Amino acid sequence: MSILESLATAAELTPQPSDKFSFGLWTVGWPANDPFGVATRPPLDAVEAVERLADLGASGLTFHDDDLFPFGSSDDQRRHAISRLTAALSSSGLVVPMVTTNLFSHPVFKDGAFTSNDRAVRRFALRKTLRNIDLAAELGAETFVMWGGREGSEYDSAKDVRAAFERYREALNLLSQYVIDNKYSLRFAIEPKPNEPRGDILLPTVGHALAFIETLAHPQLVGVNPETGHEQMAGLNFMHGISQALYSGKLFHIDLNGQRGIKFDQDLVFGHGDLANAFSLVDLLENGGVDGSPSYTGPRHFDYKPSRTEDIDGVWASAAANMRMYLLLKQRAQAFRSDPEVAEAMAAARVAELRQPTLDPGETYRELLADHSAYEDFEPDSYFGAKGFGFVRLQQLAIEHLMGAR
Amino acid sequence: MSILESLATAAELTPQPSDKFSFGLWTVGWPANDPFGVATRPPLDAVEAVERLADLGASGLTFHDDDLFPFGSSDDQRRHAISRLTAALSSSGLVVPMVTTNLFSHPVFKDGAFTSNDRAVRRFALRKTLRNIDLAAELGAETFVMWGGREGSEYDSAKDVRAAFERYREALNLLSQYVIDNKYSLRFAIEPKPNEPRGDILLPTVGHALAFIETLAHPQLVGVNPETGHEQMAGLNFMHGISQALYSGKLFHIDLNGQRGIKFDQDLVFGHGDLANAFSLVDLLENGGVDGSPSYTGPRHFDYKPSRTEDIDGVWASAAANMRMYLLLKQRAQAFRSDPEVAEAMAAARVAELRQPTLDPGETYRELLADHSAYEDFEPDSYFGAKGFGFVRLQQLAIEHLMGAR
Amino acid sequence: MSILESLATAAELTPQPSDKFSFGLWTVGWPANDPFGVATRPPLDAVEAVERLADLGASGLTFHDDDLFPFGSSDDQRRHAISRLTAALSSSGLVVPMVTTNLFSHPVFKDGAFTSNDRAVRRFALRKTLRNIDLAAELGAETFVMWGGREGSEYDSAKDVRAAFERYREALNLLSQYVIDNKYSLRFAIEPKPNEPRGDILLPTVGHALAFIETLAHPQLVGVNPETGHEQMAGLNFMHGISQALYSGKLFHIDLNGQRGIKFDQDLVFGHGDLANAFSLVDLLENGGVDGSPSYTGPRHFDYKPSRTEDIDGVWASAAANMRMYLLLKQRAQAFRSDPEVAEAMAAARVAELRQPTLDPGETYRELLADHSAYEDFEPDSYFGAKGFGFVRLQQLAIEHLMGAR
Amino acid sequence: MSILESLATAAELTPQPSDKFSFGLWTVGWPANDPFGVATRPPLDAVEAVERLADLGASGLTFHDDDLFPFGSSDDQRRHAISRLTAALSSSGLVVPMVTTNLFSHPVFKDGAFTSNDRAVRRFALRKTLRNIDLAAELGAETFVMWGGREGSEYDSAKDVRAAFERYREALNLLSQYVIDNKYSLRFAIEPKPNEPRGDILLPTVGHALAFIETLAHPQLVGVNPETGHEQMAGLNFMHGISQALYSGKLFHIDLNGQRGIKFDQDLVFGHGDLANAFSLVDLLENGGVDGSPSYTGPRHFDYKPSRTEDIDGVWASAAANMRMYLLLKQRAQAFRSDPEVAEAMAAARVAELRQPTLDPGETYRELLADHSAYEDFEPDSYFGAKGFGFVRLQQLAIEHLMGAR
Repeated sequence: MSILESLATAAELTPQPSDKFSFGLWTVGWPANDPFGVATRPPLDAVEAVERLADLGASGLTFHDDDLFPFGSSDDQRRHAISRLTAALSSSGLVVPMVTTNLFSHPVFKDGAFTSNDRAVRRFALRKTLRNIDLAAELGAETFVMWGGREGSEYDSAKDVRAAFERYREALNLLSQYVIDNKYSLRFAIEPKPNEPRGDILLPTVGHALAFIETLAHPQLVGVNPETGHEQMAGLNFMHGISQALYSGKLFHIDLNGQRGIKFDQDLVFGHGDLANAFSLVDLLENGGVDGSPSYTGPRHFDYKPSRTEDIDGVWASAAANMRMYLLLKQRAQAFRSDPEVAEAMAAARVAELRQPTLDPGETYRELLADHSAYEDFEPDSYFGAKGFGFVRLQQLAIEHLMGAR
Repeated sequence: MSILESLATAAELTPQPSDKFSFGLWTVGWPANDPFGVATRPPLDAVEAVERLADLGASGLTFHDDDLFPFGSSDDQRRHAISRLTAALSSSGLVVPMVTTNLFSHPVFKDGAFTSNDRAVRRFALRKTLRNIDLAAELGAETFVMWGGREGSEYDSAKDVRAAFERYREALNLLSQYVIDNKYSLRFAIEPKPNEPRGDILLPTVGHALAFIETLAHPQLVGVNPETGHEQMAGLNFMHGISQALYSGKLFHIDLNGQRGIKFDQDLVFGHGDLANAFSLVDLLENGGVDGSPSYTGPRHFDYKPSRTEDIDGVWASAAANMRMYLLLKQRAQAFRSDPEVAEAMAAARVAELRQPTLDPGETYRELLADHSAYEDFEPDSYFGAKGFGFVRLQQLAIEHLMGAR
Repeated sequence: MSILESLATAAELTPQPSDKFSFGLWTVGWPANDPFGVATRPPLDAVEAVERLADLGASGLTFHDDDLFPFGSSDDQRRHAISRLTAALSSSGLVVPMVTTNLFSHPVFKDGAFTSNDRAVRRFALRKTLRNIDLAAELGAETFVMWGGREGSEYDSAKDVRAAFERYREALNLLSQYVIDNKYSLRFAIEPKPNEPRGDILLPTVGHALAFIETLAHPQLVGVNPETGHEQMAGLNFMHGISQALYSGKLFHIDLNGQRGIKFDQDLVFGHGDLANAFSLVDLLENGGVDGSPSYTGPRHFDYKPSRTEDIDGVWASAAANMRMYLLLKQRAQAFRSDPEVAEAMAAARVAELRQPTLDPGETYRELLADHSAYEDFEPDSYFGAKGFGFVRLQQLAIEHLMGAR
Repeated sequence: MSILESLATAAELTPQPSDKFSFGLWTVGWPANDPFGVATRPPLDAVEAVERLADLGASGLTFHDDDLFPFGSSDDQRRHAISRLTAALSSSGLVVPMVTTNLFSHPVFKDGAFTSNDRAVRRFALRKTLRNIDLAAELGAETFVMWGGREGSEYDSAKDVRAAFERYREALNLLSQYVIDNKYSLRFAIEPKPNEPRGDILLPTVGHALAFIETLAHPQLVGVNPETGHEQMAGLNFMHGISQALYSGKLFHIDLNGQRGIKFDQDLVFGHGDLANAFSLVDLLENGGVDGSPSYTGPRHFDYKPSRTEDIDGVWASAAANMRMYLLLKQRAQAFRSDPEVAEAMAAARVAELRQPTLDPGETYRELLADHSAYEDFEPDSYFGAKGFGFVRLQQLAIEHLMGAR
């Protein structure tokens, strides 16, 4: 590689504001307590988080209300924390593209928030959320994420699930009306998860959330915020889920991280889980739009946890690793798309042929029924022992690009 | 138990036409070949299947086109097979509540049917389906199930997933228009599955199918046909999935069977998998409607496989076991609902309180914001160490009813 | 049921010391913090735990060192806590059948204990354990459980796994020698788990632990302590795992609880997870020995967590539920074994025939090779369409007994 | 890259006999029938398989008896098939390093072979295996693999699992004695699998097989043949499993392929599943021995299935892809090991420190107890907020090497 090429590569791999990388305050700030162990790291001040993330090249910070000011803070404490944050944002240039509400940590939410069996809790949860929506609007956030981590149950008889959906809908409708009436430029993004901390969580996958949204009073205001690991905890293909969200016009935000199969929520660095699926995801996000443009232009948000084994140096190394993984995968995906042999293998696999409508222009079932070539003269047995799709060859080319081997 | 009680119990456990039990021809007819072994049983004649199922108390038979007449049959062969079936149905009293199309066995469908990369295959699949819709209408079926078992991929680059959804939609729209124009009283029911035989199948869960339906031209014609094992293969709670389908008004049909966790598709007898979840499912179906009426009144369809270890006697024993399991669970669920101690535990767990709207009649966010009892005077810390929901006690009561121990 | 029968049944379902039910202090004492939420319950005093468990009918209490006296306690604090416990045990009649060491909560163990990459940590872990072995011996415990929850890794390159096994062995050998030299009547029991809190834990299943034991200097001193949910987190059949532990003579202790499939470690009440597998497990433990005697006579230890939704009343209800579930399942299993129709179905399924050696007495491969009936005259094709095993019928009988329906 | 470097790289990626790549005849020969579809490819002649594999650079062919001559072949048919094979082997230079027996496809094995409840089946299975052992010895195979795919059950009451282990042991002991008496230089390798085609298979993981081996009469003759996908179907880390097999001295053979998580057995090309785990596996096999030498020197055997979408060209492309993936990963692993920054990160992560015994030379627990630096003066709290292991940084370096980005 020439020096110029090396420099170009290095530039490609340096995070820029245009990359729209953002991090949750609770990610780098996670003190590393887990179900079987206490914290291994002290709390991280929000101002330090902002400054270090800015240094590393991130452009956005996101947070839950309780991340910034503890549950139960007085108004003064709350305002003080907000002021410190906004000052830090201002001096660092970071923005707050998304805000979310903590409706899962405090004992009051032990059976959920919007769908707690306890009506007083539901009312409290709405109030806590409304208050935080005001803050989100104040800080210029575009997206308000809703992860209903406690909306669910361990035991089937303990929850009237259809009633829970009615209440969930009631909550979303109220919050949407509030945003409309206040002319906030916020949109909601539901974050699905199949389980943990509840045995079964409502809206367990991207599909369930998309379906639920269609039942709302203002579906146009509500989309999804899929998280890599959450879909993979159900054994689902994350790229497929993102594709369906895009197909439905509902990819309002995305949470990138890493997960190694069906187990507890690992929240590893993006790409440190299923690497091949991360590759196809970045390829979709960056090259899956019209004429190879990006299919998604919002924040690339990392919702991960620096491993409990790490000290603060490891925290920042892991934050940087998320962005570097994304940029490396983007580079690999671009090379994949521009390789003539890949283009030839894609053509052989008829990938683009799927974009061609099955019917001719203007054709209906009537013309199809009259088309003998489609059925009477079609020879299905010609597919036996022939007409292979060459998918394995294409996959091998993809993996070789991922490995930088072409 | 008195003799009269015994007789009443026996009657409750004897399948009746009113129970609407139906079986796929491919279930009792499965010759027991699997990925690692050849058939252990000879083919079962359709007429024998009808007669034996009628004897056992079933009321319905369902089938794929290829179950009744082999792929590639001549018109005469097809008509002959249909005539034999209708004669047997007529003499036995069985009906055909549902018909479906085999778009997965023949090599032509190796990359799918409606979403094959190969456009000629897509056109052929539509023709094969249209032909079978006519047959479904002729036989008086109410539901046309669509399991897209080959619609998917093994490799992420091999399938443009959004294009696949476009083609899937194109297919459903065409088929719906055909049904509308022909004034058929058929509705479509999509059957989700996460994987197997493809590495990742499109519309992997009930949620994904419900979301997809909302993008169609005629969503009112299309619902879902969830299968116990298919949802459980993704680690999801089947009763929850059915609840969301009911919430969306889309439970058009149901496939009952048994699955023991996240692994290959087992298709065990209903109740021979996750027994506790089967209990809550039957409770939902039978007692989950208004005032405790059934929430679903369609066929109780068993889509299972008699284990490969069984001979024909075992086949019929397994068919009978499905119905007996359902009736036993129904009996247990009714006892559960009528137990005063359960009612008391449900009240303590505030299960019914979730049916109460979170807002008062006429209340909006404005009144909620003005209600100090909801936030300013609410004491969230009172939930620490107190206000337990008693869910474990309720679960124990449920399990004891399931075990006939109360 | 007659009054006498009712009384007999009630007696059968009342926990007795002879049932050997024991609980971890950390189970009823769990304050219900989880990865996404703080505690919902205050700490439970050890004395209260002893008294209440005794009232409920338990006969044993177990604990980690840190459960009784916080990590870093002074000798005085430690002795004081021990004295309070022993006094409570003495007055309640409870025994301490098992003790274990907490090598996973404190930050020092963030990369493990006996297999931490950090040698100083390994030495500290050994010392902490030796100290606790003395306490176990002092309290008359028979079993010393070792759950290596932090022995593992998130990243493949971070741990030399074979070296980790060498160090694990070194630790076990040292501890075994200490027990031998001190003439303690303690045996070690390794508790496997596949993951959580580490991404991959060493000795992930009963099988791996059994294999590891055979490499030790004193394998006779070391067995396993399988936990229901831990095996089921790997999708494995717990009854099968227990059977292999019994086959190897290594079932030294058992942890009973409930788990609903492959997900995070749920620690539900025993029987509130996979109910059918719990039934076959109890059948194995109670009726699987010689002539139907118990195959295991040690403590029935519950290692579960009262759900986070519960207050202290729910804690005690859940503790009682564990014992009641066990006794109900025992009752059902005894009825299953004594049902003549089950005996007949078992015979038809040839279950007992598997206990008969494949070779005749004194037969070797030579006689087998000379036996034409075994091969040359054997007709394998006679198994096609015939010679079914009737397994589905037997399973239906088992489920009906589990449901109290026979 | 210079031309010379390019040539060197190309040479590194060209399969050589010294790479010991071998394939099952049933892999490239799979006609692509699956549970939901018939074959999409015609049978492949064994001679063609040998010739094409030799052309591609493989050095070994393996097979089940039934792959070469159908179940029930006459002696003449059998001999004819063997002769054709040996002639092809001779002219191509391929060897037969491993042979195995099909004890799972025919109806006679529907409840297993060595552990079928039916004693006559067990005797027949032994005879079929003995006959095939003679053939394995005749062809010079070193390893005799035993995959007990039908040894298991769907229903817990249907199988006396401990009795099954007794029979399994009886079978292995008999076969071992036969090999010893005949002075065959064969060793047995058990291939674990958790499920499919049975609901639960005995010896579900590497750990269970290793434990079972220790109960045999001739354990030195029996090792394991772990398969990538089989361990990953239980959510286990394949590299960890191989490490334990190596630790126990039992890695007699290995089956390489690809699997994308916990689902049905996919048998993808090696590296087309969990790529990062494949990287650490190859690193272990190639660089994990003394002083960085290989830790395993036997055949690199691919047990995969060319996807059902492929025609014969795709079959050979997929065969080549397996070998290329292995060689690419080997190249990446070597670069990883020789990168000074990796060495530095490994040192910081104290990876090598785990190879250092925890005790000093000659130290026993007595000296350890006397060492105040190990406990009394050790400061565990110094691990809070400090002494991070840098595992994330090391993982990022590993992934970058895997991606060819360093």
